[in-house]
Amino acid sequence: MADSTDVEKWRDRLTKLAPELEFRQWPDVGNPLDVHYLLAWAPPANLTHQFPNLRVLYSAGAGVDQFDLASLSSQVSLVRLVDTSMADIMAEYVLFAVLALHRDILAYQEDQREGRWQPRPIVLASQRRVGVMGVGTLGRAALGRLQPLGFQLSGWNRSLKVVPGGRCYVGPGQLDEFLGQCDILVNMLPLTPETDGILNSARLDCLPHGAGLINVGRGAHVVERDLFSALDDGRVGGAVLDVLIKEPPTEDSPFWNHPRVLLTPHIASDVQVEGGVAVIVENLRREIHGMPLLNVVDRSKGY
Amino acid sequence: MADSTDVEKWRDRLTKLAPELEFRQWPDVGNPLDVHYLLAWAPPANLTHQFPNLRVLYSAGAGVDQFDLASLSSQVSLVRLVDTSMADIMAEYVLFAVLALHRDILAYQEDQREGRWQPRPIVLASQRRVGVMGVGTLGRAALGRLQPLGFQLSGWNRSLKVVPGGRCYVGPGQLDEFLGQCDILVNMLPLTPETDGILNSARLDCLPHGAGLINVGRGAHVVERDLFSALDDGRVGGAVLDVLIKEPPTEDSPFWNHPRVLLTPHIASDVQVEGGVAVIVENLRREIHGMPLLNVVDRSKGY
Repeated sequence: MADSTDVEKWRDRLTKLAPELEFRQWPDVGNPLDVHYLLAWAPPANLTHQFPNLRVLYSAGAGVDQFDLASLSSQVSLVRLVDTSMADIMAEYVLFAVLALHRDILAYQEDQREGRWQPRPIVLASQRRVGVMGVGTLGRAALGRLQPLGFQLSGWNRSLKVVPGGRCYVGPGQLDEFLGQCDILVNMLPLTPETDGILNSARLDCLPHGAGLINVGRGAHVVERDLFSALDDGRVGGAVLDVLIKEPPTEDSPFWNHPRVLLTPHIASDVQVEGGVAVIVENLRREIHGMPLLNVVDRSKGY
Repeated sequence: MADSTDVEKWRDRLTKLAPELEFRQWPDVGNPLDVHYLLAWAPPANLTHQFPNLRVLYSAGAGVDQFDLASLSSQVSLVRLVDTSMADIMAEYVLFAVLALHRDILAYQEDQREGRWQPRPIVLASQRRVGVMGVGTLGRAALGRLQPLGFQLSGWNRSLKVVPGGRCYVGPGQLDEFLGQCDILVNMLPLTPETDGILNSARLDCLPHGAGLINVGRGAHVVERDLFSALDDGRVGGAVLDVLIKEPPTEDSPFWNHPRVLLTPHIASDVQVEGGVAVIVENLRREIHGMPLLNVVDRSKGY
């Protein structure tokens, strides 16, 4: 935890709900042999050698792509701290971003800067097709927020999932067809070797002309050069980006100044202390009773 | 109707559902004595003299403040074409605007323009107080969209109304108290002599410091000079304005360039042909059967 206020919050909550645990804060770890559980966003290398008795590594985020899975001993369970409030916060951001693109806000803001007052036709939500890539806990929460507004919904996922009010397209074979019917595309995929760079020029070309893109997954899902040229020639009409390959982007990144890009600094969601601690405490209980842990990452899938 | 495409849509729909009516388009009105119904956004002056047999004047909008009620014969019913889809479209915009302010989007956009990557703390919807001024058809629809997200809701209205999940503050006596608990204030009032200029400096000072303002009512509800200085010194943290006193604003209007103002050109909602014609057709039926018309404006209240 970089932020010391955050560390205090985790310590307070954990001490309250699991007083039997001794809380140690990096780098004051004491005897490394005592360390059984580790909570980290991006842990140091050679974790297994440093903490030979490590049993569970908790990722303080929805994804685990920041971990080197290959170097992690198979004795260690890797657990994601996804909780309901994290999913709600993410869904709230996605709802905002979809509505912004649906109601042409980036175009209106460009008009505002250039002194134009130019109403555009209103498109009904029932005429707007919104597709979500990645129908996991977070994706389902986002779809659940969009559904009551009447959007035409669909999802794309590695395996078949229930998409509230719409079709689930499955696997690489149905990706282009899925993209072809997304007026607004929301990327909520986990980052794995299969999804790295998935939104490249050829994929963006599958979208209807002028479609909107929302990226709350990982920056590396999008080939940024390809997105930039698609924005420049209008193939992509607008983008709301919460993640980039390099965060913060370099000073000369074209995304800072593109009129059709809304950039936020990786704030679409965050693990909430209360929900995160609840997962840890429940897993302690499960460990004692020899039950399978919650939210364990399947390393063969990478999420 | 300024837009001829729109006129065609109204004509087609009306001709289909009420073929007994002859549709005439301004200025080709034929014999003025034949005109019983008039659909207009801003009708010509001396309407009653021009069309002595006018029975119903349909306002092609949610408000009727553009009409000179005093000059309109009491024989003429003034009817607002508010319909469900208009309320849905408005609620969609309000939801967008509340989420934008709730998630600090205007501040992030300012950061983006200035090359800053600076995450701000996430505030849970359950910790955010959103107040709606004007709990009519449109206000209730907006509150209904906000409620499932978990915001703390309240309303302010001339008379007591049901506010889903919150308290309704009533009348001038409770206005300051209402404003004092609005982190985000949404103005959805009708424009009347009582509400003209209601959001002046003293009223804006009642808001919590840094509150957000959304105006989808009428420009004249807000004393623009007062709002501008409140924005400038941070008393109001951000504003989403769909209406202004003068539309489009003059070239030198400070709202074009204020970094904490999101300006849209009066597009939060619009009468939809289908719903509007449904009201007209239903009122024809009611007239034939001697029943009271739908959506008649109470001239003593002005809405």
